[in-house]
Amino acid sequence: MSESDHIAWLMSRIGSDPRVPIGLGDDTAAVRLPGCGQQPILVTTDMLLEGSCFLLEEAGPWLVGRKALAVNLSDIAAMAGEPVAAVVSLGLPREGGQALAEQLYLGMAAIAEEFNTAIVGGDTNTWEKPLVINVTLLGTPTGRGPVTRSGAEPGDWLMVTGELGGSILGKHLTFTPRVHAAQRLHERCHLKAMIDLSDGLAKDLRELCRASGCGAQIEAARIPVSAAAQAMTDNTSPLDHALGDGEDFELLFAVSAQEGAKLLEEQPLGDMGMHVHRIGEVIPRGLYLIQTNGERAPWPLAGYQHPFR
Amino acid sequence: MSESDHIAWLMSRIGSDPRVPIGLGDDTAAVRLPGCGQQPILVTTDMLLEGSCFLLEEAGPWLVGRKALAVNLSDIAAMAGEPVAAVVSLGLPREGGQALAEQLYLGMAAIAEEFNTAIVGGDTNTWEKPLVINVTLLGTPTGRGPVTRSGAEPGDWLMVTGELGGSILGKHLTFTPRVHAAQRLHERCHLKAMIDLSDGLAKDLRELCRASGCGAQIEAARIPVSAAAQAMTDNTSPLDHALGDGEDFELLFAVSAQEGAKLLEEQPLGDMGMHVHRIGEVIPRGLYLIQTNGERAPWPLAGYQHPFR
Repeated sequence: MSESDHIAWLMSRIGSDPRVPIGLGDDTAAVRLPGCGQQPILVTTDMLLEGSCFLLEEAGPWLVGRKALAVNLSDIAAMAGEPVAAVVSLGLPREGGQALAEQLYLGMAAIAEEFNTAIVGGDTNTWEKPLVINVTLLGTPTGRGPVTRSGAEPGDWLMVTGELGGSILGKHLTFTPRVHAAQRLHERCHLKAMIDLSDGLAKDLRELCRASGCGAQIEAARIPVSAAAQAMTDNTSPLDHALGDGEDFELLFAVSAQEGAKLLEEQPLGDMGMHVHRIGEVIPRGLYLIQTNGERAPWPLAGYQHPFR
Repeated sequence: MSESDHIAWLMSRIGSDPRVPIGLGDDTAAVRLPGCGQQPILVTTDMLLEGSCFLLEEAGPWLVGRKALAVNLSDIAAMAGEPVAAVVSLGLPREGGQALAEQLYLGMAAIAEEFNTAIVGGDTNTWEKPLVINVTLLGTPTGRGPVTRSGAEPGDWLMVTGELGGSILGKHLTFTPRVHAAQRLHERCHLKAMIDLSDGLAKDLRELCRASGCGAQIEAARIPVSAAAQAMTDNTSPLDHALGDGEDFELLFAVSAQEGAKLLEEQPLGDMGMHVHRIGEVIPRGLYLIQTNGERAPWPLAGYQHPFR
């Protein structure tokens, strides 16, 4: 089974609810709580499974703990939200569980502090099986409200916040969630649609276009290929790494051509050491990659390319 | 390691935060979100691990899904809160994952509907290991605000909402979270402290007293022993089952003697098929069990008696 199939099945069963302006199928849900007026809160959850989502012996518990919160912070970033509070559930191996739990917490606490996020509760279990960590993160929308995946329109520019590919060489553990970058962009312009690149550009662009009911045309020559993607020594080209690799945790967003041009010139993330790149544009339908030789090819089908799957 | 040790370690590290009026160590946390004024939201999370917290082949996926949400509803009940929205993470075995995920969801959806709770998002993963389910539930306080574990005072009566023990014979899967009962009690009287009986009366009373900084004296003859506890055929007495067994998911609460007497007489949960019982009283310090022969014994040490551990 695939996660997309399951989400499609769920979406077919779950009706609309006036309390839930943004439900399944975006980076976070948005929920209106009685007593909070019209402003919704953002909520997102991610489960990391040892051996499938991370290798504990390679990463060490501190970085695994950090990552468990960081992937959720990235989801809040994708809505241009502000993180507030997290709850953490652990399924710990019986042997050495206490020391492991402490290191996980310390890694989590380090990035929680960096993003002013309170760790407010959790659930701790032990079993004879590998480590499981689940983090749920609550946040609030900022300025113009939550940015969904569904507002892109033909003519919009598609842009990314950084270089892509090869995250398995380290960035998948040490990445900075683009919370501050997203908020800065959200202040400067009208972000029409946004998604965080967790499953790879090939798949995540497809999700953004599906949610927006549009197509896209991306220019291969404009895709910023990371040094890590170039350093990979397997039989996949650096460009294919940039397209297919998961866990870059940069942001892909759509803005009007006019605002895109302004962002490109002003580079408002420069003081954060980041550069925004234009990689293509939104079209009414179809997904295409303009290759470096100028030919238009179908957009790659690359699915979920998680570092450890 | 024990969960209590880990929570104690965490509490020693996590400072106070004005956004978090109720943090670690209660049934739910309470968090104030920017834009929501002074009213906090309630958040709780629970992870269920196959083979440790449930036996999938015995319970079947529908009841496991139901339970995964129900245990969280019980935590919201313990604060006299109103549930609003849940997010669900799954770690599915690769084989048969889709069908399993659907049955889990249907069980969850049934109890979600019963308690007007929206399922708003989640995370779905597969691995070669047993089933893992994590549910995080958001809610809001009702009437007089969240009821914590920490407000009991000497002279208060200690009461429970139902009969205890032997939940392994079925109730641990089919129980009704006491959400409506708690709200009714919260309207009728000042609930000074409350906890849901998930780890067994012996342990949960200890937690309530620790949080409130007080002691308690319970009369064995007053503890309502369930028919299931009487039907158990192991070498443990029905009373010891009522004291030690986990997962009754009834509520233990403290009220003034005056309000307790009124509740006992009026039985405000009668139309829900429930009876409130007085089991003892809060004292300044020490934890005691008045045995049926009238002798005062130390409160049993029984720790976590999870049905499947």
